[in-house]
Amino acid sequence: MTKETNIHPFDAAIYLTKENEKYIGKTSDAYKNMIGPFGGVTAASLLKAIIDHPERKGEPISLTVNFAAAIKDGKFSIQPRLRRSTRTTQHWYVELKQKGSVSITATAVLVRRKDTWSETEARMPEVPLAGELASIPVEGLPAWVGQYDMRIVKGIPDLDNPKIVEDSTTLQWIKDVPDRPLDVFSLTSICDAFFPRIFVKRNEMGLIGTVSLTVHFHADLKTIGENGERHILAKAWANKFYNRFFDQTGEVWSEEGELLATTNQMVYFRR
Amino acid sequence: MTKETNIHPFDAAIYLTKENEKYIGKTSDAYKNMIGPFGGVTAASLLKAIIDHPERKGEPISLTVNFAAAIKDGKFSIQPRLRRSTRTTQHWYVELKQKGSVSITATAVLVRRKDTWSETEARMPEVPLAGELASIPVEGLPAWVGQYDMRIVKGIPDLDNPKIVEDSTTLQWIKDVPDRPLDVFSLTSICDAFFPRIFVKRNEMGLIGTVSLTVHFHADLKTIGENGERHILAKAWANKFYNRFFDQTGEVWSEEGELLATTNQMVYFRR
Repeated sequence: MTKETNIHPFDAAIYLTKENEKYIGKTSDAYKNMIGPFGGVTAASLLKAIIDHPERKGEPISLTVNFAAAIKDGKFSIQPRLRRSTRTTQHWYVELKQKGSVSITATAVLVRRKDTWSETEARMPEVPLAGELASIPVEGLPAWVGQYDMRIVKGIPDLDNPKIVEDSTTLQWIKDVPDRPLDVFSLTSICDAFFPRIFVKRNEMGLIGTVSLTVHFHADLKTIGENGERHILAKAWANKFYNRFFDQTGEVWSEEGELLATTNQMVYFRR
Repeated sequence: MTKETNIHPFDAAIYLTKENEKYIGKTSDAYKNMIGPFGGVTAASLLKAIIDHPERKGEPISLTVNFAAAIKDGKFSIQPRLRRSTRTTQHWYVELKQKGSVSITATAVLVRRKDTWSETEARMPEVPLAGELASIPVEGLPAWVGQYDMRIVKGIPDLDNPKIVEDSTTLQWIKDVPDRPLDVFSLTSICDAFFPRIFVKRNEMGLIGTVSLTVHFHADLKTIGENGERHILAKAWANKFYNRFFDQTGEVWSEEGELLATTNQMVYFRR
């Protein structure tokens, strides 16, 4: 908790006020990235605008966020538009603007879940517990990294030893700093909270930027909340790096072994 | 080729005419599904409206299509809106409407690619060649299945033996019937051209419907075109079936072993 406000920095970062049909937010210094704010928090803000909307019904199952332009420090507006409702689903289109220009387009599908036959085919990776691993140091890294406790099992860029490795997979335990109970917003943000695959692949930094991020939610809000302040296990890998773009594909698991979300993004890299 | 028109049924199905800011299409009997048209062809039509648009620059890298309502037989309109352009990217929002109601929302990102360092981490599944496998029979199946030659290596629903299997993965060689050179539209459609995972998982049919489909393109238009009229290899699996929704996650490979696309969808199931 920050002393002045008693609000968690993540909640402050995704805090929105309503002005007519729009929700107004402000970039957070705590979640600064190399250029503009950390995209995970921005994605969470877009989802929050939908969840806060008086017409919202149901829980998110799918969120796609397309990052069109770098967000500048300061205010932004988010306008969620409900485009179609059915008995089971809601379909939203959302834009984030700064000074009248669209910086982000996004769509989301919300649904009414119902108890049915269920089964998980994916297997949670077998890894040491978070308590058995050291937190990564965050000095010299963009501010947002310091807002997470990351305990990396494998796949951390070794910048002293730049070389291309065969497997860019990262496995990490992660949770908010300071502690904050997991919810659908922090889960969304954590789906983007990886070192970019190309940094791991080549063990060097470079200019990159997420172009499109999709999150599929595989658990209801109650199950997500049950993780509380514990770490969750996040895995990310890449299928292909090709002519300026690569994918980052991931899974996020609760500490108890529930698959909470899968995520896919396409990322620009300069060379 | 159809005799009357000399146009391939797939090209007829995604054929659009322009009326002011909108593109008008018509559902195709050849690609009928159990309810409404096959979603893959609809997704391809949305992408075609963008590609046909005079302001379009670049090649698709990401497409997300949210299916809000069943499409009725007959005409539909597609309106692509360019929301933001940068030097490298274009961001589009698209709606498909019937009789004034939104049936589909979609976003797409188009990019200018450039030769860079490239590497594929994913491995093409090792399977028998298409020529060594029999085509599946299509009698009694929805019309769209007959528009494809599918040679399934594994993962076909065994309706005579309904039981839950551990692994719902399907591996199939697939191409258009009649032959048609692969392009970004048919590739998009093929990303949806699987038996639904739950049919494979439980070896029984049931009421299902795709809610959200994302395709990430990992090859440029030239590379896609180089596959010509040969089969491509498509793999699909599910991570989790949970309270009315499951994912279908897939890869599509050229015959020569190039990863062309990855795809993820969330699908409704009744019980």
